[in-house]
Amino acid sequence: MSRFEPADPDFAARIRDSFARQGAMGHLGARMTRIVPGVVDIELAFRPELTQQHGFFHGGITGAIADTAGGYAAFTLIPADATMLTVEYKINLIAPADGERLVATGRVVRPGRTLTICEIEVSAVKDGASTVCARGMQTLIRLNGRPDQPGG
Amino acid sequence: MSRFEPADPDFAARIRDSFARQGAMGHLGARMTRIVPGVVDIELAFRPELTQQHGFFHGGITGAIADTAGGYAAFTLIPADATMLTVEYKINLIAPADGERLVATGRVVRPGRTLTICEIEVSAVKDGASTVCARGMQTLIRLNGRPDQPGG
Amino acid sequence: MSRFEPADPDFAARIRDSFARQGAMGHLGARMTRIVPGVVDIELAFRPELTQQHGFFHGGITGAIADTAGGYAAFTLIPADATMLTVEYKINLIAPADGERLVATGRVVRPGRTLTICEIEVSAVKDGASTVCARGMQTLIRLNGRPDQPGG
Amino acid sequence: MSRFEPADPDFAARIRDSFARQGAMGHLGARMTRIVPGVVDIELAFRPELTQQHGFFHGGITGAIADTAGGYAAFTLIPADATMLTVEYKINLIAPADGERLVATGRVVRPGRTLTICEIEVSAVKDGASTVCARGMQTLIRLNGRPDQPGG
Repeated sequence: MSRFEPADPDFAARIRDSFARQGAMGHLGARMTRIVPGVVDIELAFRPELTQQHGFFHGGITGAIADTAGGYAAFTLIPADATMLTVEYKINLIAPADGERLVATGRVVRPGRTLTICEIEVSAVKDGASTVCARGMQTLIRLNGRPDQPGG
Repeated sequence: MSRFEPADPDFAARIRDSFARQGAMGHLGARMTRIVPGVVDIELAFRPELTQQHGFFHGGITGAIADTAGGYAAFTLIPADATMLTVEYKINLIAPADGERLVATGRVVRPGRTLTICEIEVSAVKDGASTVCARGMQTLIRLNGRPDQPGG
Repeated sequence: MSRFEPADPDFAARIRDSFARQGAMGHLGARMTRIVPGVVDIELAFRPELTQQHGFFHGGITGAIADTAGGYAAFTLIPADATMLTVEYKINLIAPADGERLVATGRVVRPGRTLTICEIEVSAVKDGASTVCARGMQTLIRLNGRPDQPGG
Repeated sequence: MSRFEPADPDFAARIRDSFARQGAMGHLGARMTRIVPGVVDIELAFRPELTQQHGFFHGGITGAIADTAGGYAAFTLIPADATMLTVEYKINLIAPADGERLVATGRVVRPGRTLTICEIEVSAVKDGASTVCARGMQTLIRLNGRPDQPGG
């Protein structure tokens, strides 16, 4: 169970809808595989289109799904008429992102009326074994009265 | 003129070759438009495949090209038998990435035998006007005796 | 000349007053040596009470004066009835902080109604020569209607 | 129990000795209250000499003990003939550092032959209740063949 209480009971539907409008996540082939209060997972299957020059997942792509997982983790806790923007993120690439897929987890550390802090972690799954390949932190800001809608 | 002296006179060819092997940069449509000692620019034309939910460039994509620009900026200064890995990057998204294209600039702040520090900056160009939309820092580590080749 | 316009013409007096109430800066022996719109310098003379185990300035002390310089740089641009809090800072220690004194410079990169971004840099001055020993970034938040007064 | 195996059985004595040579920690009044493989705590009792302008612990001082706790956490795992330097740290100040004392915990996330990553967390203890007031990450580099001795 989560230690957080969502402000909007329909948070999961709202997040799926927002994620579906992110052209970048569709283009990378990312899927959202967990949405619970304060925690979101995003997965990415390996494709040559996602690599750096040595054939592993690109560190910038690893960072991109980590940023997105953290952003939606923060999003699970906000009211329906608000949206969330990333202020900054910092990520350490601690092992090669070598595997069949990546799983990025965003986790709210401290939610706030204005600022929310998340930790972000990415694991590479290879032959069924999971290895943490990146870890970071993210600061987000909540914009009230600006629902996250098309053209919003 | 650059204040840095490249260790390998063929650095630009080596970098173009390495960049061309990055499946992720090709998939995003990124192009390398400047390679001088200590400085690299990467550009990305707008496409709906690169957006977040409000139709601007995705912050994670902005971070991905910034990471790559900084990585290759560091790469301009290393010997031919070495390669460069990102240790960590931190990026502040300071304005909406709204424009026809993004230009990411990586700039070496301090090159080192082991660690190199870069600053990274991304501008959005809209109707010919350029606005800084992201700014960050990056730490890289040099691996000696490991040329950046296919399978390297 | 500065490219920034202060919102409060008495910003320098307000900042000197606030700095004087920082017990920590007095205890370290730090002095504020430049206050112009968007830029603040803080200097620290060498004392054994400021060292790490090898006799150089302690990295945490370097970070502390950098955080303070950035915070007051942001402070130069806000109205008289507001205050500024550090949200986060990130600092790379790029050379030993070896010298007679440190000079930390905070510089506003982007001021905002809510968030302000600064870059922070610390140089060590030894035998009259200045070497950059640390460099970082800082995010601050402005609190309106809360003047920076004792008990504020 | 710790999941880490120290390389030097006398790590705790070596760390206490190194910490005792840090003039800065003595000047602040910091004490090391836990040294186990991969984890170090540093505590700081409240004094007006440690405050920012509103009377709470100064954010830069919070960062300084966090940096030190992370540095010695990494130090617990290295051989006797090596030392550890901070490459960079990033810290989010997530609540006022308001209390009788601060407790900074450094925790190794991933030890490495060259680079080690730590997470750092600081809590403020007030009337017996502990509140996390800062959280961050730190990257360190190990220098081999350079024992951490006076003049080292």
